[in-house]
Amino acid sequence: MRGLWLEDRQLRLREDLPIPVPGPGEALVRVRLAGICATDLELRQGYYPFAGIPGHEFVGEITAAPDQPGRRGERVVGEINLPCGHCAPCRAGRGNHCERRRVLGIKGQDGAFAEYLVLPLANLHAVPDTLPDEVAVFCEPLAAALRIPEQRPIRAGEGVLVVGAGRLGQLIALSLTGGDYALQVVARHPRQRALLEAAGIPWIGEKGVTPGAWDLVIEASGTPAGFELARHALRAAGTLVLKSTYARRAEIDLSRLVVDEITLIGSRCGPFATALERLRQGLDPRPLIEGRYPLAQAITAFAAAAQPGALKILIAPQPPPPSGVSTWN
Amino acid sequence: MRGLWLEDRQLRLREDLPIPVPGPGEALVRVRLAGICATDLELRQGYYPFAGIPGHEFVGEITAAPDQPGRRGERVVGEINLPCGHCAPCRAGRGNHCERRRVLGIKGQDGAFAEYLVLPLANLHAVPDTLPDEVAVFCEPLAAALRIPEQRPIRAGEGVLVVGAGRLGQLIALSLTGGDYALQVVARHPRQRALLEAAGIPWIGEKGVTPGAWDLVIEASGTPAGFELARHALRAAGTLVLKSTYARRAEIDLSRLVVDEITLIGSRCGPFATALERLRQGLDPRPLIEGRYPLAQAITAFAAAAQPGALKILIAPQPPPPSGVSTWN
Repeated sequence: MRGLWLEDRQLRLREDLPIPVPGPGEALVRVRLAGICATDLELRQGYYPFAGIPGHEFVGEITAAPDQPGRRGERVVGEINLPCGHCAPCRAGRGNHCERRRVLGIKGQDGAFAEYLVLPLANLHAVPDTLPDEVAVFCEPLAAALRIPEQRPIRAGEGVLVVGAGRLGQLIALSLTGGDYALQVVARHPRQRALLEAAGIPWIGEKGVTPGAWDLVIEASGTPAGFELARHALRAAGTLVLKSTYARRAEIDLSRLVVDEITLIGSRCGPFATALERLRQGLDPRPLIEGRYPLAQAITAFAAAAQPGALKILIAPQPPPPSGVSTWN
Repeated sequence: MRGLWLEDRQLRLREDLPIPVPGPGEALVRVRLAGICATDLELRQGYYPFAGIPGHEFVGEITAAPDQPGRRGERVVGEINLPCGHCAPCRAGRGNHCERRRVLGIKGQDGAFAEYLVLPLANLHAVPDTLPDEVAVFCEPLAAALRIPEQRPIRAGEGVLVVGAGRLGQLIALSLTGGDYALQVVARHPRQRALLEAAGIPWIGEKGVTPGAWDLVIEASGTPAGFELARHALRAAGTLVLKSTYARRAEIDLSRLVVDEITLIGSRCGPFATALERLRQGLDPRPLIEGRYPLAQAITAFAAAAQPGALKILIAPQPPPPSGVSTWN
């Protein structure tokens, strides 16, 4: 099959990849559409020692499921963690933190920038017929955004600040609309601001941030400057959620954390069922789509995604399917 | 009056200090016994720009309370934060995080290493008659320890590790005994271990810490090595409570916090009423007392408290009172 191959920080389009074979409890999924995320760009820069097919945001359809043949033809999105099922975290119900986990397109498991991928059936969620592929492909990052209120429920009347209005910040902001709290987003670029305005979400510039005023600050810029701004914006006894993995080691004044009783929460993958439900209810991430490339142009797609301020770039391994599924497109 | 004076990193015993005068809503308190804490040692090292009388752990008795003369003679312990009452945190009920707060013996308010101090009546809690001064003087640090389960309730069956078995670690460990969870303390020195054993609290050496195994880790060593050990001991999706202010800026792998979904909580002052109740119910911190010095020997007392591994050093500004209150001593 055709697929994008990453090895030694080099991306290469390959035509000679074998179609993966589903094992017990697994399904073969034909990828319909996949999204490029910051983690993919980091993988390419060598932050993680991954060699294989990257890509972990996708919508596809099950083409083989030996253990549950009834699910063949199902359009699905997929959770990306493959837990071992036996270690202490797995036994405690925290499979996402399995010590031996493989992660789709990130660790030990080939990903979605290819014609096919394999995932356990338990990871695959059926997509409602009403959701187009271009909406469903956002399920994984939207789930990650929805992890935030799971970890830190937002109370009525609170002030919530999202630092960063790129791919992730925009999606987090969208996911947080409609609550009985005051939401603002720190946005740098005119296009980011226009998108927020179109969604009815108030934005401010970096210099407009009132220091020490925000109850909950979500760092989604992934830059040291963004972290500093988030810390500066947070009130004493407030909570700072770290949503970006690309900020590397940073210097933190631990004494200040203690004196101000700050809570810092790292946040990663989230609830797919909730994300699908929010999409079904009308949350529309499609304004974030900046480009759609066929798999044959995946390397160009990566270059586009790496541009500063770039929003969501999609890769379509297949041409749009023929009649019968056209309502999905 | 006599008092210990800190200025430009120098401690000096003075006999010429004026007895402070209580303002509206305040009380004059004759100090009976005061404790030296790590923050006092830091103040002396110049970590905070404080000039005045240090000391914030005390038990005393009200000798003047113009607005509530009925409280004269009351034996009290006192909360150390003096909020302004008007700023945003104060109005939101977070006076301990008042932006303009004074803090007894730490910031803008003379403290307890003197014959007298002044505090608002609202800060002063009556000490039950059954509690000796040597027990009551631990109320402030015990309250700080009890802040931990206020911020992060401990669930049945969890594994709780305290890193550090000095003054603070021992008190935290004592405060956490009796729960339906597994408590262990990382202790370095034989004397620390013996104290824990006497209290029936299991200890382990640094090399005995199982990595990634603990649900809740409390850093009470105040050293970078202690922070690293705490981080190492914590499981994914676990909580690390920072209880020490003396660790300065530290390098943290923020990406790792995100991937492991770690929660980091800074923790400072806690509930006095709960602390008094625990002391009344029999929590006995007196084994932690290592020495008791008259105020005239306060500088020697500081030197003793600064010894590595030193436990609680007390300063008694007054000779023990005559009959009638002897049950307190």
